[in-house]
Amino acid sequence: MTAFENLMAHARDTAALDNVMTRLGWDQRTMMPHGAAHLRSEELAALETVLHQRRTDPRIGEWLEAAEAPDDAGTAALRELRRAYARNTRVPDRLAAELARVTAMGQEIWAEARRNDDVAAFLPILRQVIALRREEAAAIADGGDLYDALMQDYEPGASGAETAAMFDRMRPRLVALREKILNRPAPEPLRGTFPQDGQLRLARKLAEAFGYDFAHGRLDLTVHPFCAGHGEDVRITTRVVETEPFNCFYSTIHEVGHAAYEQGVDPAYALSPLGRGVSMGVHESQSRIYENQLGRSRAFTGWVFDQMQAEFGPLNLQDAEAFHAAVNRVHAGYIRTEADEIHYNLHIMMRFDLERDLLRGEIEAEDLEDAWNLRFEADFSVAVDRPANGLLQDVHWSAGLFGYFPTYTLGNVYAGCLFKALAAEMPDLDAGLARGDLGTPTAWLREKLQRHGALREPRATIEAACGFTPDEGPLLEYLEAKFGALYGL
Amino acid sequence: MTAFENLMAHARDTAALDNVMTRLGWDQRTMMPHGAAHLRSEELAALETVLHQRRTDPRIGEWLEAAEAPDDAGTAALRELRRAYARNTRVPDRLAAELARVTAMGQEIWAEARRNDDVAAFLPILRQVIALRREEAAAIADGGDLYDALMQDYEPGASGAETAAMFDRMRPRLVALREKILNRPAPEPLRGTFPQDGQLRLARKLAEAFGYDFAHGRLDLTVHPFCAGHGEDVRITTRVVETEPFNCFYSTIHEVGHAAYEQGVDPAYALSPLGRGVSMGVHESQSRIYENQLGRSRAFTGWVFDQMQAEFGPLNLQDAEAFHAAVNRVHAGYIRTEADEIHYNLHIMMRFDLERDLLRGEIEAEDLEDAWNLRFEADFSVAVDRPANGLLQDVHWSAGLFGYFPTYTLGNVYAGCLFKALAAEMPDLDAGLARGDLGTPTAWLREKLQRHGALREPRATIEAACGFTPDEGPLLEYLEAKFGALYGL
Repeated sequence: MTAFENLMAHARDTAALDNVMTRLGWDQRTMMPHGAAHLRSEELAALETVLHQRRTDPRIGEWLEAAEAPDDAGTAALRELRRAYARNTRVPDRLAAELARVTAMGQEIWAEARRNDDVAAFLPILRQVIALRREEAAAIADGGDLYDALMQDYEPGASGAETAAMFDRMRPRLVALREKILNRPAPEPLRGTFPQDGQLRLARKLAEAFGYDFAHGRLDLTVHPFCAGHGEDVRITTRVVETEPFNCFYSTIHEVGHAAYEQGVDPAYALSPLGRGVSMGVHESQSRIYENQLGRSRAFTGWVFDQMQAEFGPLNLQDAEAFHAAVNRVHAGYIRTEADEIHYNLHIMMRFDLERDLLRGEIEAEDLEDAWNLRFEADFSVAVDRPANGLLQDVHWSAGLFGYFPTYTLGNVYAGCLFKALAAEMPDLDAGLARGDLGTPTAWLREKLQRHGALREPRATIEAACGFTPDEGPLLEYLEAKFGALYGL
Repeated sequence: MTAFENLMAHARDTAALDNVMTRLGWDQRTMMPHGAAHLRSEELAALETVLHQRRTDPRIGEWLEAAEAPDDAGTAALRELRRAYARNTRVPDRLAAELARVTAMGQEIWAEARRNDDVAAFLPILRQVIALRREEAAAIADGGDLYDALMQDYEPGASGAETAAMFDRMRPRLVALREKILNRPAPEPLRGTFPQDGQLRLARKLAEAFGYDFAHGRLDLTVHPFCAGHGEDVRITTRVVETEPFNCFYSTIHEVGHAAYEQGVDPAYALSPLGRGVSMGVHESQSRIYENQLGRSRAFTGWVFDQMQAEFGPLNLQDAEAFHAAVNRVHAGYIRTEADEIHYNLHIMMRFDLERDLLRGEIEAEDLEDAWNLRFEADFSVAVDRPANGLLQDVHWSAGLFGYFPTYTLGNVYAGCLFKALAAEMPDLDAGLARGDLGTPTAWLREKLQRHGALREPRATIEAACGFTPDEGPLLEYLEAKFGALYGL
């Protein structure tokens, strides 16, 4: 076997074992008996040790030196393997193990602290997580910027400085739009109680409408919805709050967007370094365009309005216009995951600035609550009422995920670009959406983007799909047009 | 670390990874999307390679030579590790991989052949399976008997000759009992349709009554019920046929018996070589005593009769006596898994004789269908009507599981012994059973047997629990007394 063939065979088994890890994570969050947590942590640790040894196997370094790619896909696979190997071998085993231990503990302590609104209980472990991730970032950065080094895990090629510049261009237009909207009368919200069975029936219908393939996936309940898996086995989850059915429906469509990317990758790439979504930002572009540009459009919400009445009987909302307005209600709430399309990005910008300051050492863990609360009130014109609605709302920092948050807004920006390109090619898009038929746009996304997996770098993936260099313009124009019409601005 | 400590740490991680394999098997049979089979086989193969390397790691041999056990549990752990290491290192890697591949294919071909009643389609792969298992048995046996060598995988310490001698002592009394019963009028069977929801509700109630711990397990639907896992995470499965509710109820109780053993092992043994049931025969003693001696007793079926009426309304059976008779109906059916307590053992004896002849080379795959059909008609006085009701009914041989079948009857024999000992200590056993209260007998089994895991060899496990040397006498006396009363013999 050539060095290249050895590399690919080794990567294939590693990917198969990584799939097993993913399956355990899915099980833990959907099926696992609650008394099995301790045993499961030992199982995960044993499998993680196997994976870590494989990922830092010195033979990979030797093969990478000698490997010659037979084609473009081979070149891309080597690019992914080189990046991963360099990253994994720069982190000492001792540090990797310590990070795994402390972030696992961090998530447990965070969950308890959030339940009790107890920031003080969270700070000691947060300090440890920050210190370890700074140390890891220094090892990976090799003299470069620490925050940039961490961003590469989620969005290869991105930088803190470029992201900050883009956010600076976006913020004034989002703030201006937000203020105009909040000066207008708020639309009537959806009211009522919608039983779980009916919500799940309609969620399955929505998933099918968006092309989710149940022969290679399944839909289950969980606390925080997620999508897990690659290729032939990509499972999605949702949650049900009986008084808030949009929560179930739109989190389902969101996860279907992630799943479509993973289910849509060319089967020839299965278990190779190209056989999965290329970055968090590109992944989020798929979940967001499914959820927002398509799922929350006037045309598609008209169809959802009919489906809801068929499932649940008459609603308090009189017609499809009122229903569309309720689905897209703008509201300065505390919680990121429940935010509308405008406020969502303000949440992200705030977390991005805070976590960059943390990595640079400009603020420390003990300053974070004050910094959060000041910034939130400045951006949202509302004071945080309790830590569970503020600093303690998201799991990310307890798990050491610094550098992850900006990929959410990057995903929105990319979704804006993809939608502009897609809509330009489909003058009759709305006619299909109004019938609940999403075949044309989802086929376009699969052909232009999803099937290529990690063939191209993230930004190049979007550019190849759109046919133009991505920036924040299309997202902002889409938001101004959509909410301008909805709120009569 | 001492050699002993190294061994135990290594075994602990191997056990954790083996648990992961078990969890994948559970997922495959309960949750996996049907289109994921190909990907899953690659995941299983990657994990199996990791496990095989660990199990044949030459360091185990070195540690075993130097290890000194600190206590009795340590001595027992070394006994288990020595047996496993000797077995695993005697089988060449090439043969192990070939067996894994051929038996996986064998099970697929068997399932298709059974659907089509097509013995000819099954014979070529069966021939390969037999040849490979003979080769493996020769490698393990090290000059000894081939069938005995294979039995050790399921029942350490058992031998074909001893088993044959015991079966020869049992057969005449079972045949005599069977003939007397079949000359009596058959009791009225349960009739009607029992919806799935109600069956599952009652199955959960039965599982709870027998002490199944849902905080460390769960109950799901599958095609062929099984129990999977050890310690903190032991999951059971059942199936529902709406016209045959006893199928669901008694397969649930049976799997609860297996689960009770695994959930009941001393937590100090978790992930050690002692942290699981010691053999298939001892395991089956637990599932059988739960299902039969306790679950099909006159006292307990009286409670089940009440529960069924509460769930489903009036039954065609007039009273608890008629219900008990229906639950214990004796019938010379084709299918082992649906057999009553008497015919079940005749099924096993037949398979045992056939597979021993196969291993000795006295018959070959192509003789098997004729041999099966002749023997079945001789033992059951009924001609096999089609291969799905004959040779093709069980998965075992397609998977290479020669030497496994006799452990089912050995489990019945052990259950007979345990019940004799248990009943002698509990004069008021029936009073509890009649209330659906199984606390006393299940606590006795946990204390005397389940909590010890693999501390003692299989036969010694039963002897320590019963206080006498186990043999077939108590089972035969129990069957003669129970069915004598039921059929007025």
